[in-house]
Order: sequence, then structure tokens, then C-alpha cells
Amino acid sequence: MATTPPPAHTPNQDKLKAFESTLPTPAQPIGSYVPVVQVGNVLFTSGALPVKDGKLEHTGAVGSYSVSLEKGREAARLCAINCLGNLRAYLGGLDRIKRIIKLTGFVNSAPVFYEQPAVINGASDLLVELFGEQGRHARSAVGVSALPMNASVELEMIVEVH
Amino acid sequence: MATTPPPAHTPNQDKLKAFESTLPTPAQPIGSYVPVVQVGNVLFTSGALPVKDGKLEHTGAVGSYSVSLEKGREAARLCAINCLGNLRAYLGGLDRIKRIIKLTGFVNSAPVFYEQPAVINGASDLLVELFGEQGRHARSAVGVSALPMNASVELEMIVEVH
Amino acid sequence: MATTPPPAHTPNQDKLKAFESTLPTPAQPIGSYVPVVQVGNVLFTSGALPVKDGKLEHTGAVGSYSVSLEKGREAARLCAINCLGNLRAYLGGLDRIKRIIKLTGFVNSAPVFYEQPAVINGASDLLVELFGEQGRHARSAVGVSALPMNASVELEMIVEVH
Repeated sequence: MATTPPPAHTPNQDKLKAFESTLPTPAQPIGSYVPVVQVGNVLFTSGALPVKDGKLEHTGAVGSYSVSLEKGREAARLCAINCLGNLRAYLGGLDRIKRIIKLTGFVNSAPVFYEQPAVINGASDLLVELFGEQGRHARSAVGVSALPMNASVELEMIVEVH
Repeated sequence: MATTPPPAHTPNQDKLKAFESTLPTPAQPIGSYVPVVQVGNVLFTSGALPVKDGKLEHTGAVGSYSVSLEKGREAARLCAINCLGNLRAYLGGLDRIKRIIKLTGFVNSAPVFYEQPAVINGASDLLVELFGEQGRHARSAVGVSALPMNASVELEMIVEVH
Repeated sequence: MATTPPPAHTPNQDKLKAFESTLPTPAQPIGSYVPVVQVGNVLFTSGALPVKDGKLEHTGAVGSYSVSLEKGREAARLCAINCLGNLRAYLGGLDRIKRIIKLTGFVNSAPVFYEQPAVINGASDLLVELFGEQGRHARSAVGVSALPMNASVELEMIVEVH
């Protein structure tokens, strides 16, 4: 009797599982809003900040004396991790994500700092690393003059689920 | 013969009806855009400003000498009222709203003002007051350097309808 | 035997075809993102910049000495053209667009420049010119302190397809 092959298992899925186990349980937002809202098979996330272990890890304007482009990129990656933590908490598992649809990245920017796309690549690259082709998203990256608690980056996502 | 009970009537619905009767009829936007566009059962609103009786009520950067956090919060609440006025005009009645999906709040921010979330709570709290659990939304709050007509806040919504 | 009339052909469709032939083939974005993502019958575009022939055509803050409102409007129009170029490349033809749902326009703004709506009209007017009533969209226009490569405007769209 022929054995049924195991379901297709991509390297991405292993990477995703390993990554998922590192995700913190997110704190609930303070206020009248929630981290994730679903409509049909589309999820909208709230703007996430570069928080780690309950502490805002990256503050200040990117491109200023104290916040390099590289730190900005780390901040954007951390925002993406927090968005994914919120999505994991909502969905149960990140394998329910079918596609990353859209990213909007707001970069707290020093005057004459114009590398917002390079900053938000910190988030975009992580998503493609984790989800492969399904992680490729539409994106806007803009520079703003102020973010909550002086965070260096704020990031929101729209994703499709199975 | 058994009588059919009246449809469930929540306190929120009373509050919503009372609120609805206070909403102004919105002016049409000047230009090639419209206040609300529907796709499937999802509505996207245009960015609303803190206008009252046809006059921009809150101008200037929140956190500056002349615009306190509390005034910013009032501005955000007024933006939400104007969004809801546009939705009411489009839908006929706010009871057709099933869920507030997403809020994006742009706060005209003075340098070193980092309390954008507290400002946008003026909108978020109103929505939960009116719609209860269905009013809880995903949200981004960001600080910007300039808004149309020097408005203190601009707010847009995505909502789901029945 | 009765002949079947040709399909309805509106002046907009002629204008659209003529416009389409002028659209450049867009360059792929540099990074892990893509110009357009589809979910159901809705397309989200990445933020487009006022690029022409591979060169950023409009830089600097609108309302500053070197960038007039009129130049800002041209920049917004060019952003819209680039969004539409991306949509054309994705869809094959712009006649597959059923409705322009939403525009978000970020205007690199000089201090005390508050005419972001007049700037973004450069994009909105083009869309209505091309798509007629189906081109009327919801819209937010905000002022920001910095955009990628010091672009004067960044614009993103949400559209519905047939």
C-alpha cells in the first residue's frame, strides 16, 4: 500500500517555526484600540514601535548624531517583530499568514535624512527571509517629525490569511 | 400564538441614535475626491479635519504653547465626528457599521511632542463609547510637521458594514 | 440576422488608451518589496515618487523658495503616473481598473506650508480626467518633514479591479 508523502515542507516553514518560538507575548495596547482587526481574510495591524522586553529600544530621529541608519534598520526590524508577535497572538501561528500585503513605515527623521527606504528595509528583509515570495509586499516609507514616545520607527502591516 | 420578541436593542444603539441626531450634514470635499468609497463591505474615508459649523476649530501644532494635549484630544474627537458624519451621509445610518477596522491619526506636532497616542485617544474613546466592542480598531498615530490649513489633527477610517 | 453592437465605448476609454501608451515601463523597486500586491479584487500599490526617465524630477519641500505649489502639483501628478505605470505593468491594461478607492499623498512640506490638498489635486484631477466617476476616490493629504531621496511628494493608491 502506497504511503502518503508528508505535506510539502519548505525551508521557510522551518525558519518560521524557529522564529515564532522567539516571539514575545505582546502587551495589550493601552487605550481603546487593539493590535489586530480582521475583515474577511485580511488583517490590519496597529502601528508597532521598536519595543523589546517591554522597553522602547530605539528612540530619536534616524540620521541624527545618536541614531545611525544601521540603528534605524534595527528599529524597523524590531517593529516588524512586534507586528508579527501581535499577529501570532491573534492567529495562533504565523503559518496562517498567506501573504504580506502592505507595509507602511514611518521613520522619525532628522533634517536632511532621506534614506527612509533603507531604514524600512530592516522590516522588509525580515519578512522576505521568513515568508519567501509570500513575504514580498507593497510598501510606503515616509519621514515624519515625531513619533509616539520619540520612537525611531513606527510600522503597520496589512496581511492576508488562509 | 407566540409573539416574536423585538430585535435585541443594546444601550449602544440608543447612544448611537442620540449621537447620530447631533451629526452635521457634511460639506462635499472641494476637489476630485469624495468623503467615502466602498469596496465590498469595506468603506474607506477621506482624511477628516477638526471642522465645526464649517470652520476649522483646531489649528496649530499640538504640544506648542497654544495647543495643549487636551485641545489635541478634542481635535481628534472632532475629526472622528466628521468622519462619522461622512459615513452617516453615505450609509443613511451609523447602525449599518459592523466594525471600525482601522484608524490612522496624523497629529500636527510641536518639536519634542511625543504623545500622539494620547491625542488620538480622543477619537478612539468616542468610537468605543458609541460602538462598544465593535468600535475597537487597529490604529496608527504619528506626528507630522504640517497638515492642511494648519489643522491640528487629520484622521481617516476604514470600517466594515453589514 | 441582427448584428451585435460593439461594446460600449466611452470617451474615457479612448483617453485611457492614449494615456496608457505614454506610460513608461516601471523599474522594479530596489529591495524586498514589490510595486503592487493584490488581495481579492483589491490592489495596493507601493508609494510612488515623482520620477521621470529614471530620474527623480521633483525634490525639496513644497512651499520652500525653490518648490512652488504648482511644481508640487506637477510632482503629485507624476507620482500618480508612476503608480498607474506600475498598475498597468501588473494588470496588463488600465481598463481592468474598476474604481480608484483611496489615495494617500505625503507632501514634503516647508514650514508654514498648509496647501497639501492643492498639491495632491495634481494626482486626483488626473485620475478623474482618466477614469471619470470611477476615478473619484477617498483621500488623505498630509505634510511630512522628509521623503525618500528628498522627493517632493510620495503617493500610494488602493484600487479595485474587475
